[in-house]
Amino acid sequence: MYVSDGTFKQRYLVNNEHWDQKGGPILFYTGNEGDITWFCNNTGFMWDVAEDLGAMLVFAEHRYYGESLPFGQDSYSDTKHLNYLTSEQALADFAVLIRELKRKVLGAQESPVIAIGGSYGGMLSAWLRMKYPNVVVGALAASAPIWQFPDMVPCGDFYKIVTQDFARSGLNCDVNIRRSWKAIDNISATDDGLQWLSGEFSLCSPLKKTDLDGFKAWLQETWVNLAMVDYPYEANFLQPLPRWPIQVVCKHLSFDPSSVSDYQLLGGISEAARVYYNYTGNCPCLNTSSTATGNLGFIGWYYQACTEMVMPLCTDGVQDMFEPQDWNFQAFSDECNSLFGVRPRADWAATVYGGLDIASHSNIIFSNGGLDPWSSGGVTRNISDSVVAIVIPDGAHHLDLRYNNEYDPHTVLSARIQEVEYFKLWITQARKLQIPG
Amino acid sequence: MYVSDGTFKQRYLVNNEHWDQKGGPILFYTGNEGDITWFCNNTGFMWDVAEDLGAMLVFAEHRYYGESLPFGQDSYSDTKHLNYLTSEQALADFAVLIRELKRKVLGAQESPVIAIGGSYGGMLSAWLRMKYPNVVVGALAASAPIWQFPDMVPCGDFYKIVTQDFARSGLNCDVNIRRSWKAIDNISATDDGLQWLSGEFSLCSPLKKTDLDGFKAWLQETWVNLAMVDYPYEANFLQPLPRWPIQVVCKHLSFDPSSVSDYQLLGGISEAARVYYNYTGNCPCLNTSSTATGNLGFIGWYYQACTEMVMPLCTDGVQDMFEPQDWNFQAFSDECNSLFGVRPRADWAATVYGGLDIASHSNIIFSNGGLDPWSSGGVTRNISDSVVAIVIPDGAHHLDLRYNNEYDPHTVLSARIQEVEYFKLWITQARKLQIPG
Repeated sequence: MYVSDGTFKQRYLVNNEHWDQKGGPILFYTGNEGDITWFCNNTGFMWDVAEDLGAMLVFAEHRYYGESLPFGQDSYSDTKHLNYLTSEQALADFAVLIRELKRKVLGAQESPVIAIGGSYGGMLSAWLRMKYPNVVVGALAASAPIWQFPDMVPCGDFYKIVTQDFARSGLNCDVNIRRSWKAIDNISATDDGLQWLSGEFSLCSPLKKTDLDGFKAWLQETWVNLAMVDYPYEANFLQPLPRWPIQVVCKHLSFDPSSVSDYQLLGGISEAARVYYNYTGNCPCLNTSSTATGNLGFIGWYYQACTEMVMPLCTDGVQDMFEPQDWNFQAFSDECNSLFGVRPRADWAATVYGGLDIASHSNIIFSNGGLDPWSSGGVTRNISDSVVAIVIPDGAHHLDLRYNNEYDPHTVLSARIQEVEYFKLWITQARKLQIPG
Repeated sequence: MYVSDGTFKQRYLVNNEHWDQKGGPILFYTGNEGDITWFCNNTGFMWDVAEDLGAMLVFAEHRYYGESLPFGQDSYSDTKHLNYLTSEQALADFAVLIRELKRKVLGAQESPVIAIGGSYGGMLSAWLRMKYPNVVVGALAASAPIWQFPDMVPCGDFYKIVTQDFARSGLNCDVNIRRSWKAIDNISATDDGLQWLSGEFSLCSPLKKTDLDGFKAWLQETWVNLAMVDYPYEANFLQPLPRWPIQVVCKHLSFDPSSVSDYQLLGGISEAARVYYNYTGNCPCLNTSSTATGNLGFIGWYYQACTEMVMPLCTDGVQDMFEPQDWNFQAFSDECNSLFGVRPRADWAATVYGGLDIASHSNIIFSNGGLDPWSSGGVTRNISDSVVAIVIPDGAHHLDLRYNNEYDPHTVLSARIQEVEYFKLWITQARKLQIPG
């Protein structure tokens, strides 16, 4: 964009407490769709390894999220203002920022930079290495579903993994959730039933007939979110939660499905939902219009999904515990058009980011947790000697990026050790190859 | 750009005379700043090797050049319309076109695609491989000055090479050209002198005092162009020319510099210029407002230079035969601003295309001619096993991309053989790695 030469303030956080000022490495978090301070606080791994590596830590915020709003309060006002929100632009921001830091910070000129990110931030860290290998010597892409795009992986795998998480966390757990959708239909058929539902779930606004799809979608997202954050210890990522939260949820759903009424079944579901929404006990009522932390930028992400980040998901109700729903690109595109006046380019991500064909790249770690539904679109096999996969069977969404914890399973500890070993290898390689410029 | 979802017609030429329809390779010319039919006719190499490789040939026009004008006649009307003219957009066009061809052309689905280009087109072919390694399996970047950007190579090398070409093509040739600038100053000091100059050079419009800088720039560009097209046989690329045109030019400039008057010296210069401008003998007068074929899009290229393609050049009058002129970024930027209302981003090319640090890429051949001034910014040493340099000592600007000719030096013949060997290697590799998607 040379016709408009605008600039904006991009927020980034720096810690150089442990940095070796004589060219010590820089660990650079490629911010995702949210407030960067939140990612900074939830990426303990970087803080844990900084001393060992003598590393500077940088957390860079993604444009249009947190405080990095190109047009301030108007950034989301219309499609025209949203026009500069793309992953390519975010990557360019990161590349420019890194080069600027290396130029400006005394001692950083020769510092090898490693990109780190989780989820969409992990996709960005992998893509940053792919597109700007001159800027970062390698990337750790944690729980990065870079293949969750059209025609790359089956659209149903995501919800299958969610279902498996519940199935293995308690007897009858997935079966009872699968049955709950019909029970909701049955009970909501009458006004009394609707009222009962609203009361049973302590909903902030009582349900109307027209809210039912939204109510089910809210529950579905609740189960998905639980699968993402099924961590082995108490944590507060999307919500404050107990350790192994799905096990706690499933305690409320362990009854024999053939022996309970719809009311009893949904009573269990409501207890289960409260585990997610009211673990602290401070929540007077449940709000079906939101399912997670306010630190994520949902509208921005929805816009990105409506343009480049087209990620097909589907359910069949057989291999998963949800109501069957096909992936319908046309309906999605129409919705995008009515919301934002844009239509998604389903094929662009595959063109620009390589699709399944990423073997020519180098120095990328793709780590995935076996419990994480997003591992459905992740790289879970080694692509080459230097584009490698680490699988953490009992890990949820980017568990490896969190602080070490006494309850960590040994698989995540060994993943972190491997990750640091790769970092050291890349740093050594970079020092050998050092080229001016 | 999702806010505007415009499309335009991009021209591309296809030849499948020799194509093996069962997945035979595609040689894809990444069009540069000009009419694609002209590049098609001047890239005989592709036609020469098509049968051996069973290859389809595709020549794709670069947006904003030839007939591929996104806004038709308005494409160049103002900066707003020019806004979509960038190398990144051109690469994206090529990537989308290739994927579309592979999808649509029966038998092309598994075809490995090799990018080929010369000069800026060669830069694009290298960058296409760097940025879209999923789309092309390799690239031949002929005479591609990917390092002719700020802080990568000395700005004076370009004109040194021009000078060396003249120095070795005839006794005193460079010395007499170096002296000519002062002689022009001396003679043009009087009106009679100006008139004499205009007559001696058969200029279409008589010189005025204020035209002198332009006149010198025109001569300087003439010598540069001759260096670019100093081919070993009669050819018509920038102009119709005899074989080894600089040798012919230098025959008019072989006198002992100490023994001639300014008039005699400039008489020789004018004869020399006519070799370039009037080899056919059909040119009634010389026009100082143009130096080469009308097939190149000068305004578009100037806009690109004023945005991304910032290529510093300079002269010192000692190691080269030109008047000393420093590289002055600020002056250039001001000129861009007054012409187009844009300012160049001097550092962007290094950020987005890797600068000197391109070792992590693969399957790129950089070929350069020793006579070609643009080799100053070219990759003339092997970077890795698969990012390799081929130097053709007696080659001018992308001689290797031209048809085989009986006068070809053996160095260019062996370059072409090597290039085809790499093509075959990449094709074999690609077939082994074949991944769906």
